[in-house]
Amino acid sequence: MATDLIEERPWERREAFLHLNPAGVLPVLVDATGLAIPGAALICEYLDETYGDALGEQRLLPRDPRARVETRRLIEWFGIKFHAEVGEYLITEKILKRFVPVGEGGSSPDTVAIRAAKSNVRYHLRYVGYLARRRNWLAGDRLSYADFIAAAHLSVIDYLGDVPWEEDSAAKEWYARLKSRPSFRPLLAETMRGTPPSASYADLDF
Amino acid sequence: MATDLIEERPWERREAFLHLNPAGVLPVLVDATGLAIPGAALICEYLDETYGDALGEQRLLPRDPRARVETRRLIEWFGIKFHAEVGEYLITEKILKRFVPVGEGGSSPDTVAIRAAKSNVRYHLRYVGYLARRRNWLAGDRLSYADFIAAAHLSVIDYLGDVPWEEDSAAKEWYARLKSRPSFRPLLAETMRGTPPSASYADLDF
Repeated sequence: MATDLIEERPWERREAFLHLNPAGVLPVLVDATGLAIPGAALICEYLDETYGDALGEQRLLPRDPRARVETRRLIEWFGIKFHAEVGEYLITEKILKRFVPVGEGGSSPDTVAIRAAKSNVRYHLRYVGYLARRRNWLAGDRLSYADFIAAAHLSVIDYLGDVPWEEDSAAKEWYARLKSRPSFRPLLAETMRGTPPSASYADLDF
Repeated sequence: MATDLIEERPWERREAFLHLNPAGVLPVLVDATGLAIPGAALICEYLDETYGDALGEQRLLPRDPRARVETRRLIEWFGIKFHAEVGEYLITEKILKRFVPVGEGGSSPDTVAIRAAKSNVRYHLRYVGYLARRRNWLAGDRLSYADFIAAAHLSVIDYLGDVPWEEDSAAKEWYARLKSRPSFRPLLAETMRGTPPSASYADLDF
């Protein structure tokens, strides 16, 4: 399925964007009929419901309700908990504050928040390693949305150079496997104006 | 389906509880086989997958994938956004701080946080009213998990007496309809030690 990516600056609170997602957060998928599906977790569910059956063994949300619990638990873990404890701090302090000048309601980076996030990411990395040592993929034997959501959240932090991969070899090996997948490559080629990626960000052999 | 309620104090971080839900948050449903389903959103999905089909028209997550998007969007709205902007502040400041004495790492209630939450709840109440004026129930024509999740989050704030129902008649009418349902009654009879409910909390004609 081909997807066009559209840049949205949610902090500008464009009315047309808020119409797509009143919560005002990204990502939002707009399907061919114009239906807006807001948020990564809902997008996973919707893609599974509309395309999952046809994927057979490659389905990214398992068919078994019990296995779905574990996949969804990890989708929430990264989408909510990791985001709140790591991503939100670092994205706000290191990226968003560049877009909102101090004179226009912005403020300078909060070093306490950055320090907290850098401490928290170590615990999340250990948890990824814990799961990766016990299972083939994060939620079980098969690759699932949990892996992609986790990798997406970690990749933002990795872009900033703040994931201490050397602290957990199993987590690093899991991420290297994901990074090598053809579907992941285009993401690694994207860059953000004004903020170059860390040296190892797109390196498959980091 | 009969359910036994077990009190858990998540801030005590009991090891057996963290084993059920490593994220350490409530609610957690443990099914008859011992499977732990953590979080209200995952519980809704699991109940729908295991019992939904048999409910026919009374199913609480619609069968149509497009309608599911709206139901899930509102489950997230209240479970994540309302909680972050209203519930978490008021529950932390007015309830949890009673359980953790100042001498043991606790602190006295933060009046700034309480004021922010009381301001935010007004905007959420208007949003409930906006939806309730356009639809029979929050997510559409039929009662859904969105109504129960919204009502659950609002009822905690209502217990504390902090929902200004008089500001939105459509929101109030929607909540009165839910409150009158037999399934809602047992919840309204529960009280918390040391914190009596607001005068109108259990009143069906508030």
